[in-house]
Amino acid sequence: MSGKIEKRLAELGIELPIMSAPLANYVPTRALGQTLFVSGQVPARDGKDQFTGKLGAEYGVEQGQAAARLCAINILAHLRQVLDGDLDRVAGLIRLGGFINAVPEFTDHPKVLNGASDLMVEVFGEAGRHARAAVGVYSLPRNVPVEVDAIFEIGQK
Amino acid sequence: MSGKIEKRLAELGIELPIMSAPLANYVPTRALGQTLFVSGQVPARDGKDQFTGKLGAEYGVEQGQAAARLCAINILAHLRQVLDGDLDRVAGLIRLGGFINAVPEFTDHPKVLNGASDLMVEVFGEAGRHARAAVGVYSLPRNVPVEVDAIFEIGQK
Amino acid sequence: MSGKIEKRLAELGIELPIMSAPLANYVPTRALGQTLFVSGQVPARDGKDQFTGKLGAEYGVEQGQAAARLCAINILAHLRQVLDGDLDRVAGLIRLGGFINAVPEFTDHPKVLNGASDLMVEVFGEAGRHARAAVGVYSLPRNVPVEVDAIFEIGQK
Repeated sequence: MSGKIEKRLAELGIELPIMSAPLANYVPTRALGQTLFVSGQVPARDGKDQFTGKLGAEYGVEQGQAAARLCAINILAHLRQVLDGDLDRVAGLIRLGGFINAVPEFTDHPKVLNGASDLMVEVFGEAGRHARAAVGVYSLPRNVPVEVDAIFEIGQK
Repeated sequence: MSGKIEKRLAELGIELPIMSAPLANYVPTRALGQTLFVSGQVPARDGKDQFTGKLGAEYGVEQGQAAARLCAINILAHLRQVLDGDLDRVAGLIRLGGFINAVPEFTDHPKVLNGASDLMVEVFGEAGRHARAAVGVYSLPRNVPVEVDAIFEIGQK
Repeated sequence: MSGKIEKRLAELGIELPIMSAPLANYVPTRALGQTLFVSGQVPARDGKDQFTGKLGAEYGVEQGQAAARLCAINILAHLRQVLDGDLDRVAGLIRLGGFINAVPEFTDHPKVLNGASDLMVEVFGEAGRHARAAVGVYSLPRNVPVEVDAIFEIGQK
């Protein structure tokens, strides 16, 4: 746990949680060659949802950003586990998909997803700049406000 | 039609339908190297939608799971056709995307998508375990309750 | 600007706009090997949304198709910039993702996304045929009616 990215996480005051695998037939991460797909993550911690509600109703943009940031932290936590603790093997973030649980009048999806995008660039620098799509949905698992999935490039061991 | 996966399908009592290509400028499957992308599939059979309505209104979780399972069967049917009948060339399922047509109060998206995830593991075993994202939408083509797309890894011939 | 695809664009009367990069921590395109991911594009031109509203409310299918076509043109514009003007390096379009901002009763999502799919085949011919998923959402950034993202295969230089 003494790599470059670990030091950066410590500087940022970010502690990655230990994630448990889903009790189901899907997995948190799946690799194809150097491409690693991370399953959609929600803003939970220690198995408890930290946010429940919709953008434009229970939540405003800033709270949505905090929720998106927590999704991104959970993505990193799964990533660290599958890389046996060595986040320095991440060659770059390729894509984020952001699903914003919002009322029909909501229009600030990009700002909400910036909560996840910004964290990734804080952690990985230029290698964290990514393609993305931010869209609105009107329901999400357990009524969380945001779900984010990711595709990373992993370097050779 | 005598491969390992064909035998498994027969054991499970699953008969894959013959799929027709869409009458449009997109295609059911598209390969990039060993990565095969499957277009979003809906719960239709012989060109007829088998489910029409939304989760939390016309349908409950169990019916949603049956619809998701039928989407997964249609994914396998397209996969078999593009692989000239040889499903043993599938190296693994990488990712499922699940779009659940649901009322705003619905929260059980993961359970619904399990209908597709479980089928994939029944058919492919460990190689069928995949990353995924399950999100809610409030409208889908012809008001079907579920749409599922997929990314597979295909082995060399 | 004298390649085969440039000639085709001229024949079709399509002028690709100059796109500016987003003022944020994401980027319009991101490559992983020969795979190029394009961020979700909206129907804007010169920084101004050309369509604002939902399918089934403010817009019908034909207007939705025109909006989807404009998303596709913006995808091509970003693609040209990242390829230093050489669209002949595109080996093929692999996948389109179409998010249609629609009222809950809307059911014609595939027809709307055809506005983007058809343009891609007009421009790239057979190499433009792609996998895709067309789903409904009930809110999008700035209430645009359509957002489209893309995955391309790029050939060696």
